[in-house]
Amino acid sequence: MIKRGLPTRRVQSFSEVLNKVNEIVGRVKREGDLALMELTYELDKVKLESLILDEEVIEARSGLLPREVRSSIDLIWEQLTSFHELIKPPSLGGGNRNVEYGILWRPLDRVGIYVPGGKRSYPSTLMMAGIPAVIAGVGEIYVATPVKGDLDPATAYISKKLKVKRIYPVGGAQAIAALAYGTETVQRVDKIVGPGNVYVQAAKFIVSGDVGIDGIEGPTELVVIADETADPKSVALDLMAQGEHGNSSLLVLISNSDEVLEKVSGLLQGDNEFYLVKANTLDEAVEMANGIAPEHLSLYTSRARELLPKVRNAGAVTLGKTPPALIDYSAGPDHILPTNGWARFRGGVTVYDFLKAISYVNAVDADKELAESARTLAEYEGFSIHGRSIGVRYE
Amino acid sequence: MIKRGLPTRRVQSFSEVLNKVNEIVGRVKREGDLALMELTYELDKVKLESLILDEEVIEARSGLLPREVRSSIDLIWEQLTSFHELIKPPSLGGGNRNVEYGILWRPLDRVGIYVPGGKRSYPSTLMMAGIPAVIAGVGEIYVATPVKGDLDPATAYISKKLKVKRIYPVGGAQAIAALAYGTETVQRVDKIVGPGNVYVQAAKFIVSGDVGIDGIEGPTELVVIADETADPKSVALDLMAQGEHGNSSLLVLISNSDEVLEKVSGLLQGDNEFYLVKANTLDEAVEMANGIAPEHLSLYTSRARELLPKVRNAGAVTLGKTPPALIDYSAGPDHILPTNGWARFRGGVTVYDFLKAISYVNAVDADKELAESARTLAEYEGFSIHGRSIGVRYE
Repeated sequence: MIKRGLPTRRVQSFSEVLNKVNEIVGRVKREGDLALMELTYELDKVKLESLILDEEVIEARSGLLPREVRSSIDLIWEQLTSFHELIKPPSLGGGNRNVEYGILWRPLDRVGIYVPGGKRSYPSTLMMAGIPAVIAGVGEIYVATPVKGDLDPATAYISKKLKVKRIYPVGGAQAIAALAYGTETVQRVDKIVGPGNVYVQAAKFIVSGDVGIDGIEGPTELVVIADETADPKSVALDLMAQGEHGNSSLLVLISNSDEVLEKVSGLLQGDNEFYLVKANTLDEAVEMANGIAPEHLSLYTSRARELLPKVRNAGAVTLGKTPPALIDYSAGPDHILPTNGWARFRGGVTVYDFLKAISYVNAVDADKELAESARTLAEYEGFSIHGRSIGVRYE
Repeated sequence: MIKRGLPTRRVQSFSEVLNKVNEIVGRVKREGDLALMELTYELDKVKLESLILDEEVIEARSGLLPREVRSSIDLIWEQLTSFHELIKPPSLGGGNRNVEYGILWRPLDRVGIYVPGGKRSYPSTLMMAGIPAVIAGVGEIYVATPVKGDLDPATAYISKKLKVKRIYPVGGAQAIAALAYGTETVQRVDKIVGPGNVYVQAAKFIVSGDVGIDGIEGPTELVVIADETADPKSVALDLMAQGEHGNSSLLVLISNSDEVLEKVSGLLQGDNEFYLVKANTLDEAVEMANGIAPEHLSLYTSRARELLPKVRNAGAVTLGKTPPALIDYSAGPDHILPTNGWARFRGGVTVYDFLKAISYVNAVDADKELAESARTLAEYEGFSIHGRSIGVRYE
């Protein structure tokens, strides 16, 4: 369905599921494994024999992966690794006024990755969450994924490459609750990463006071900015590709060319809503995109390089004819990206999601003026013992 | 009150205030300015004439700041700036397999800083939130702070230095709601940063699906690891200083020396609970601290350098006799730090809180194998249009 003009963002709302999910989280917190077993039966109609997938089963399933897919995964693995290695930050030290300070980037101890399941499998998502965790140096990686029947071979193969400690064949809000608080069997983790349906995201929201989360992921979003140099067929395919994720995808084409808009319009197929927008200039198009703050932004123009510095709000940007779908699989950067306007304040998943910056200070020889200024402000705020604890060192 | 042994962390719970805060947030969302005015009167007993502090009033209040405090703030300003300048990350570009990729660190457009008020003023907190925002290059900074009577002169002075766009003299959950969603008068922001009481934190939690937050800050925490080289008086003052923040502060001394424990115990005064813990070795002490994941960790030992690499979970670490209170004011790193166990997965506020990593890809000349591997995995996952959108470029 073609619509003209800018979309109003439909922010995903939890209000309808929040009570239900609250109940599920509470039940897992109280009853642990038992609740996990029962909820998986009640909600997913799966009768689990164990809450942990057997290593031999994983090995066997991994062995069933077609050779060609395995090679593709190996190649993608190497590409994603090269990206996250590039951006991995060094610990930094310096100083001022005889104070030595710095930050130590430390990996998280334990991370839980949620991999959606159900009708489809998403091994690419496991890679996108797992590789930056490995590059960051995370101690232990745990995976929760709903398994109907047998584990997907690609997921099995990747989890072996990631040296995943345990796979829990559990999905939904109950899986998030288990990772957040732990059960008899499930290890409590420090952070939960990964996309999922509205129940999963509502659960991530609920537990986010007690455990780190990467964000709350909603439906896919793509804004394409195309000028007359863009191939209409490619643009249409890009929009329809992101439409494959479901009918809630936010799909927008902005162009300064009526001809491009008309040609693409004629090629678009399927049930998705596609928004077509005319901009007077490409600069104006970028400002519109900044206002939307989309997950994916394609600068399908000959001026992509020049426009890139003007992009303020977007998860990941593809330049020129680069297909946005390449980011979903093999380009290097992550495909777990901010949606629902979150690109206003964060980027995609990176090694940074698995590192924390611990700051340190050695002020044993700090100059007296610096200590004195701290005392002065402490006294001003009425924290006299703060002041004394400083004064006693530098008097 | 002295207690022996490790504390059980009392995680701050919102459950008691959540309904009330939900109601406040909803009311501000629906009724905007009117709700802000009414709630400030109902909850804070303050009758506001305007929701924006007048520039001339800020100027006048700033002029009342004693010269000595102003100089201290100027010195601290320069010290904090030097730290955040040091750790500010560069945008990074690289590539692999003829794919060019990288991350652009972009500042957030608009940030809201919450500065607690009421009985005391916290100008130091405004600096700790504001300076990294300025260094990051944030476009517009807004401040919400409850004002009874007149604005604190130091807060006025610092807000001028920060070039704060507006100060809203509003506090509590209503201020957080206004910053998150905007009202007729209050600008909606991209991220809200700053500590506050349980109502403020519950509100930050509630709005965190729609706006960035730095975290949910609870009571102050300090773990001191002291050996026989530590000065008992200084240790006692450090613990009591963090106790000044309130009776919920988590205050722990771990030592391998019975003598240190006894001496400090004899010096501790006041209403706070102090936990004293004997460790067999300093390494064991560090492991205990990692388990607690405290906001502040003091390594008050001659082996501080050697122990630092073993710290995995802590907000900010002070080495040797460096007083933890120096971080609260002038050492350089931020005093807005993770509490409630959040140090397991994030550090203190830094420039990173005001930057987002936008990833970009130029794969116009990507090698065929890379494109092919993406297609293969897309097909495997059942996303055939993803595959076609890639194929159409590289065939």
